[in-house]
Amino acid sequence: MSESLYVGVDLGGTAIKIGLCNASGELLRTHEGPTQAADGANAVLSNIATYVQELVAPGTPEWDAVAGIGIGIAGFLNIPDGIIEFSANLPFKDVHVKQIIEEKLGKPVKINNDANVAALGEAWGGAGKGISNCVCYTLGTGVGGGIILNDRLIEGYKAMAGELGHMAVVPDLEAIQCGCGKNGCLETVSSATGIIRMAEDAVGRGDRTALSLVEEPLTAKHVIDAAKSGDEVAQRIVSRAAYYLGKSMATIAIVVNPQRFILGGGVSKAGEFLFGQIREVFQKLTPAQAQEGVEIVAAELGNNAGVVGAAGLFLRA
Amino acid sequence: MSESLYVGVDLGGTAIKIGLCNASGELLRTHEGPTQAADGANAVLSNIATYVQELVAPGTPEWDAVAGIGIGIAGFLNIPDGIIEFSANLPFKDVHVKQIIEEKLGKPVKINNDANVAALGEAWGGAGKGISNCVCYTLGTGVGGGIILNDRLIEGYKAMAGELGHMAVVPDLEAIQCGCGKNGCLETVSSATGIIRMAEDAVGRGDRTALSLVEEPLTAKHVIDAAKSGDEVAQRIVSRAAYYLGKSMATIAIVVNPQRFILGGGVSKAGEFLFGQIREVFQKLTPAQAQEGVEIVAAELGNNAGVVGAAGLFLRA
Repeated sequence: MSESLYVGVDLGGTAIKIGLCNASGELLRTHEGPTQAADGANAVLSNIATYVQELVAPGTPEWDAVAGIGIGIAGFLNIPDGIIEFSANLPFKDVHVKQIIEEKLGKPVKINNDANVAALGEAWGGAGKGISNCVCYTLGTGVGGGIILNDRLIEGYKAMAGELGHMAVVPDLEAIQCGCGKNGCLETVSSATGIIRMAEDAVGRGDRTALSLVEEPLTAKHVIDAAKSGDEVAQRIVSRAAYYLGKSMATIAIVVNPQRFILGGGVSKAGEFLFGQIREVFQKLTPAQAQEGVEIVAAELGNNAGVVGAAGLFLRA
Repeated sequence: MSESLYVGVDLGGTAIKIGLCNASGELLRTHEGPTQAADGANAVLSNIATYVQELVAPGTPEWDAVAGIGIGIAGFLNIPDGIIEFSANLPFKDVHVKQIIEEKLGKPVKINNDANVAALGEAWGGAGKGISNCVCYTLGTGVGGGIILNDRLIEGYKAMAGELGHMAVVPDLEAIQCGCGKNGCLETVSSATGIIRMAEDAVGRGDRTALSLVEEPLTAKHVIDAAKSGDEVAQRIVSRAAYYLGKSMATIAIVVNPQRFILGGGVSKAGEFLFGQIREVFQKLTPAQAQEGVEIVAAELGNNAGVVGAAGLFLRA
């Protein structure tokens, strides 16, 4: 077997997903199993090794073709040394993941944070396939991001590049404090959490909105569906989320000038209703040359972005 | 001669400056001559070729060691093809600079825009020497910029990366229109032009300031000197310029997380008086992890940044 293959591992708090990719970023097959985080770091690392060997049998030509194993992890990482320093949803403290998995499997290992890895997956094998410069947003509980320039994942000096949720975009008078301690961060308005907060505020204020009739806890989907049905209060909330996304992109357009913005995560499922508004703001706020040919599109890989991107760490990071 | 050498050309409206660099970014020697722009594109290109050959004599071992010639140019460029599409201060329209100089000198040629090239010079051989991620500002008539990540100059999709002067940082209520057509751009407040405008406004309004006694046309230096002497109106103007620089850096810190911000150009000569204020704002507005170890320093190469960066195009772009 002459073509190199790459294994990607998406290490989550409840499940470990594994994928096998070729050098073009195509996902050949996947496998998964429980993380068993409660059993401790050693058990989790043994599970990773076991699941990898269940996906690709050691000793086969396919195993020999595996050129590297990439792992995406949520937490504070020492990326060059492959160490998890701390993770909120895993029992890991200063665990030498790279070294331990390399010893178990005899293949080179790289780790990186989950948001960067998902962005790399989309850029390499998803909505950014074939282009060299793109910026990915994940609109979920928070707003995550990842930046690929000249075909490479940008990590920055201390691996803080692409923290797009913490761009300060909301003007002081309207800004609220973010979980990071700063005011006016993008994720205070454009994450699912931000959308829910604005909706709860509106309901609490007694604004006339169908959202006040929802009996279960409000979700971003409730707000987006109400906006699509013509609820003006919900429309204002979604427009605000769209406005600050577009504004953040206008800034990114003149800082790194990507060819494509790729939006994934739950909120992005609002589809063209949301994307149309973001594009309008982006066009209004961005100097002409920095928006020429620039596209704002939906992510394509969904939950597979993590394993594809992790596999791509050996070619693109 | 085993080590490769690189020639950098800084093509200006009145003078052509040339430098010879080694592979470490050290400037070995320089040469210059008049551009003679009025004589047309062919004359200017012949001048470049002549001056290069005056700096390094063809046929010598040193000439043989020259691995490439980089040229920095102000204007709209087609960088991959090496074409000047239009330049405000040169008689160039769709001129194939790369092809023509390659034919004249028999060496590979790359072109890039002057702001990017100056940034690359500082990053490679100046205040960014030895680090992989830095962002350069040039605070002159406008605010130019350049970004180096993973040791490479970032150009972006349409060569618009690093246009830091057009980051929209001033809130709408205080924003004025920029030359680019958008409102609130950094260069409306933090360029020499912006500082002069704010000073003229203050004098015109009748604010109590020593600047109203200056008899010649106001310059940014007048304003900075008055601020240093304790003039409160001038201090407010310089603080405003510093504030928006720091604010723009806070955004850049979480988008690309550079290790060092390098400030050059006339306004940066204000020195620690300006830098101290910028650092204070940056520290206040940037999430802790994105400012850890990040430095804000003065450029070192002055007028030589252009030739050094142009020479660096072969190694770093």
